[in-house]
Amino acid sequence: MGLTISLDAMGGDHAPQIVVEGARLALQRHADLAFLLCGDETAVAPLLKAHPGIAASCRVRHTVERIAMEDKPSQVLRRGQSSSMGLAIQAVASGEAAAAVSAGNTGGLMALAMYSLSTMPGIDRPAIGALWPTRRGSCVFLDMGANVEASAKQLAQFAVLGTAFAHVILRKPRPRLALLNVGAEELKGRDSVREAAAMLKNTSIAYEFIGFVEGSDIPLDVAEVIVSDGFSGNVAIKTAEGTVHLISHFMKEAFGGSLLGKLGALIARGAFKRLEARMDPNAQNGGVFLGLNGIVVKSHGSANGRGFASAIDMAVNLARSNFAAEIAASVKALNEGTASTVTAASGGQPHRSAGAHEEIAAR
Amino acid sequence: MGLTISLDAMGGDHAPQIVVEGARLALQRHADLAFLLCGDETAVAPLLKAHPGIAASCRVRHTVERIAMEDKPSQVLRRGQSSSMGLAIQAVASGEAAAAVSAGNTGGLMALAMYSLSTMPGIDRPAIGALWPTRRGSCVFLDMGANVEASAKQLAQFAVLGTAFAHVILRKPRPRLALLNVGAEELKGRDSVREAAAMLKNTSIAYEFIGFVEGSDIPLDVAEVIVSDGFSGNVAIKTAEGTVHLISHFMKEAFGGSLLGKLGALIARGAFKRLEARMDPNAQNGGVFLGLNGIVVKSHGSANGRGFASAIDMAVNLARSNFAAEIAASVKALNEGTASTVTAASGGQPHRSAGAHEEIAAR
Repeated sequence: MGLTISLDAMGGDHAPQIVVEGARLALQRHADLAFLLCGDETAVAPLLKAHPGIAASCRVRHTVERIAMEDKPSQVLRRGQSSSMGLAIQAVASGEAAAAVSAGNTGGLMALAMYSLSTMPGIDRPAIGALWPTRRGSCVFLDMGANVEASAKQLAQFAVLGTAFAHVILRKPRPRLALLNVGAEELKGRDSVREAAAMLKNTSIAYEFIGFVEGSDIPLDVAEVIVSDGFSGNVAIKTAEGTVHLISHFMKEAFGGSLLGKLGALIARGAFKRLEARMDPNAQNGGVFLGLNGIVVKSHGSANGRGFASAIDMAVNLARSNFAAEIAASVKALNEGTASTVTAASGGQPHRSAGAHEEIAAR
Repeated sequence: MGLTISLDAMGGDHAPQIVVEGARLALQRHADLAFLLCGDETAVAPLLKAHPGIAASCRVRHTVERIAMEDKPSQVLRRGQSSSMGLAIQAVASGEAAAAVSAGNTGGLMALAMYSLSTMPGIDRPAIGALWPTRRGSCVFLDMGANVEASAKQLAQFAVLGTAFAHVILRKPRPRLALLNVGAEELKGRDSVREAAAMLKNTSIAYEFIGFVEGSDIPLDVAEVIVSDGFSGNVAIKTAEGTVHLISHFMKEAFGGSLLGKLGALIARGAFKRLEARMDPNAQNGGVFLGLNGIVVKSHGSANGRGFASAIDMAVNLARSNFAAEIAASVKALNEGTASTVTAASGGQPHRSAGAHEEIAAR
C-alpha cells in the first residue's frame, strides 16, 4: 500500500483549486499515493467530482475553520487545532499520514507543527530548509526564518538537518557543507559561526565541510548545503526574490520601450521561456520544516497546481527515505565529536571564494 | 579655491590606471578640484604625462608600499600607515584633503580609517553605507559589513548616519526610514531591531520612520534609507550580487543557445544595453564609511575609470555638505529622545509590505 499524504486544502492564495490540481498531478507520478484533504467539503467535493480519476485516492476531512494569511502564530495556536491546517498536521502526529503539505501562513504552520510534532531528540529548534537555484542545479539552504537567532550548537544541528535533506532530495551521498558568513577567511564573522565551524570540522557525518561562503557564493555550486541563522537566511532569500523581481521589472522596461526591443523579445521568446523556467519557483517548490517528529512541507503561498505538486513530491521523497533515523545518528555523531572516525576528506580547509579578499562589496 | 581629494592610487584591481582616469573624468565635472595621488610615482607619473590637461590639478605623494587585496586588517594596521591607502587617509586626518577615495581592500581601509580618524562623538561604531538600485532610482542601505553585530542603540545611530547621507546624496529633505527585519509585523524579528524601532519612532530628526521592511522590499522604493546590522546587510548585498550574476548567466545560456535567441538578442541589443545600464555598479559606485571624523569613500575593487569617478563624485558631494554638523545634531536629538518636538508625520506606523502576512517565502 502506498503512502498517505495529508493536505491543507484551504491554505494558499489559490486554494482549494491548486491543492486538488496538485494532488491530481502528483498521482500521475505516484499512482499508489492516497491523500487526506483537510478542509471545507462544500468547496473541495465539487473539485474532486470534476476529476473522477482521482476521487478514489482522496478522502476529505471536513472543517470550515481555516487559517488566514494574516493570522499571527499566537492566534493560530489558540484556535487553529480544528482548522484545515491543524487537521493536516494532526494526521501526521497520529501516524495516519506520512507527511503534510500546506501552502498557508508559514508562521501559523510552524506554530502548529511545533505544538503537535515537537522537535526531534537532540535538536533544539526546527529550521526551514529549501532548494536555492544555482548555475547547474540547486543547493539546500537553511534556516529560511524559523529562528531569529542561532547559537553555534544550533547552527551545527542545522548542518545535520540540511545534510540529511540533501542526501534525500539532491541524492548527494557526501554533500559539500558550508556556513554562510560575511567573509571566507577563518577569522572573520560572528563568534557563533566560527564556533559552529569548529564543531563541524571533525565529525563522522557524511558531508565534506568546506568552511565559509558569502551570499554571492550561494548560486555558484560551491556547496550543496548552506547553513545560516534564520534572520540572515530570511534576509538572503527575500533579497534574492526582490532582486529577481527588480531585474524582471527592468527587463520589461528595457524590452517594452522600443519597437526593436519588442521585436527582439518576440523572436527570442523561446529563450525568454527557458530563462523563466530556470527562475520558476514552481519548478522546485517547497520549504521543509526540518527537525520535527514528522514531515511538514510548506508550499509557496502563490504556488499553482504544478508548484503544489512539486511540494507533494518533496514530501513523498522525504517520507520514503530513512530521514529521521539518519538525523538521529548524525546528532549522536555531532555530540560525540567523533574525531577518531573522521575521513581525510572531511577535515576541510575553509573554502576561499573568488571574492574572499574583498570582504565587503561597496557598490 | 576648490577641494582637495586624496586618492589611493594603488588600490583596486586595475590601479593606478582607473584612478587617474577617474580623476580625469571627475575634473570634467568639477574643474576646481585638486587631487593628491598617493602611490608609486614611477607608475603614476607616466599616466599623468599622458593626460597633460589634468597634471596641474594633481600632486603625487610617493610611496612604494601598498595594501594587497588579501591583506588582513591586523596586518594592514601593523605596516599600512606608510602605504598608498594609509597616506590618503592621513591627508584627511591632517585636514590637507577634504575626503579620501580608495578602491582597495575594504577591511584594511576600515582599519586604517578607524585608526586615523576615529568615530564621531556619540557614534559607537562606523557603518558602511551605499546606494542600492531600486525600480525608480536608488536607496541608501547600511551597514554593508563594518560590524557583525549591532545593538538597538547602534542601529538607531546607523539610522542617523543613513538619514544624513540620504539628505546629501539623494537630496531628500525627509527620507522614509526603515529597519530591515524578517517580517513587517511589529512583533516579529529580533529584540534589537524592535528596540531600535521604539527609539526611532519619536525623534525630531528629519526622516519619516515607516517601521520594518523585508529583503524583498529593498528595491521597491518603499523607503529611501534602510538600516541593518552589518552581518545581515553584507549577506543581503552579496546575495543580491550573486542573484544578478546568476540571472546574467541564465540569460547568456538562454539567448546563446539557439539561432533565434541570438537573433532576438541582436535585434534587442539596445534594450539589453539599457538593462545593463540599470544594473551597472559603476553608475553609482561608492560605499561611504559613515560615522568617522572624516570622509572616506570605498570604490568597488573592480571599478573602471567611470566607476572610480562616480566614487569621487560622492566624496565631493559629501565634502561640500554640512554632513558632520547634521549628524552631530541628530545624535543629540536621538539621545534626548525629543518626543516633544515630533511632528505628526514622524509618528509612523510600521510599514506593511505586500508580503507582510507571508513571513517566510518557502520557495
